[in-house]
Amino acid sequence: MIKYPDGSTYNPKKNKIKKNKIDISISSSNRGMDFEDEINASNEYYKLNSIALITKRPTPINVVKVDYSKGNPKIVDAYFEKQSTTDYNGVYKGKYIDFEAKSTKNKTSFPLANIPLHQINHLKNVLKNDGIAFFLIKFVSLQEIYFVDAKYVISFYETSTRKSIPYKEIVRFGYRIVENFNPRIDFISIIDKHFIK
Amino acid sequence: MIKYPDGSTYNPKKNKIKKNKIDISISSSNRGMDFEDEINASNEYYKLNSIALITKRPTPINVVKVDYSKGNPKIVDAYFEKQSTTDYNGVYKGKYIDFEAKSTKNKTSFPLANIPLHQINHLKNVLKNDGIAFFLIKFVSLQEIYFVDAKYVISFYETSTRKSIPYKEIVRFGYRIVENFNPRIDFISIIDKHFIK
Repeated sequence: MIKYPDGSTYNPKKNKIKKNKIDISISSSNRGMDFEDEINASNEYYKLNSIALITKRPTPINVVKVDYSKGNPKIVDAYFEKQSTTDYNGVYKGKYIDFEAKSTKNKTSFPLANIPLHQINHLKNVLKNDGIAFFLIKFVSLQEIYFVDAKYVISFYETSTRKSIPYKEIVRFGYRIVENFNPRIDFISIIDKHFIK
Repeated sequence: MIKYPDGSTYNPKKNKIKKNKIDISISSSNRGMDFEDEINASNEYYKLNSIALITKRPTPINVVKVDYSKGNPKIVDAYFEKQSTTDYNGVYKGKYIDFEAKSTKNKTSFPLANIPLHQINHLKNVLKNDGIAFFLIKFVSLQEIYFVDAKYVISFYETSTRKSIPYKEIVRFGYRIVENFNPRIDFISIIDKHFIK
């Protein structure tokens, strides 16, 4: 298990299994799936069904030293860098989509410390260029997922004195996404309904 | 200097200098800039001037082992993975843009071995979802850059028995981009003229 600077984790063994069994993971209603897995499975569904194409950006790594002595180049000294953007972007009906997925164990609010400033700046740039920008926020304890327009999160981030967005506000300004069989998290239906004219 | 599996190279020291001197590199007409640097500088110009937002995807790396014993987590065992997509994507006037930049020293044709099959498949998926997909091809010896619609490259890739696209065909089907002061490679002007209705 590998710990990333933002607190998320990565399990190389689990990842290998996931890659081989992607068809199983998207066709079974697996309660144990983490939020990122659910989004990746949804994106795979959208791709296979030619609904949308959303890709996850790789984690940027600063490579310092590579060992070429044994055939396949092996990185022996490198460091995790902060993603200067969001994790996901892509295309739906020709439109540019850009979002970040965040989960919290908190039940009453979403802590803004979860969102680094560079992500706010990136999403502001997306909006400036008429892209569709949003957050997918999961309240893990409540098992509730919300699609929240980045405009709202940015406005809260920049104007509020609070360090978190109250759950009630997210319910009020966001769109609830009920987890489904396939796709697991159907955020495209929200875009279709509320963002495409 | 680090060698990537696709033959490109990465210089950690050079990279550090570049990051700090981005304003200098984009404001000087530097003949020595490589193609990727020129595109990155153009993207920086588009971003700063709120014309478009194009980002470069990080190189995916499979992390096997991390050393946490000395504070900042250090990756001690990892391998380069193939990019499953293209290097660049982003948004212009709300539209999704996706492209790959390739350069060749060849003077009479562009070798298709430069384009892995997964990039062709990715760009087909972009087109299916009405995104704008293209290649920026630089003939280094001729100092000529062409914007070539992915539709044309895919069609050639799938139907031709040739292993390269003749230079004459690229001149015929592509749009020449003359290198300029700022932005260096103005591919957005091509999109504006020929792809946005």
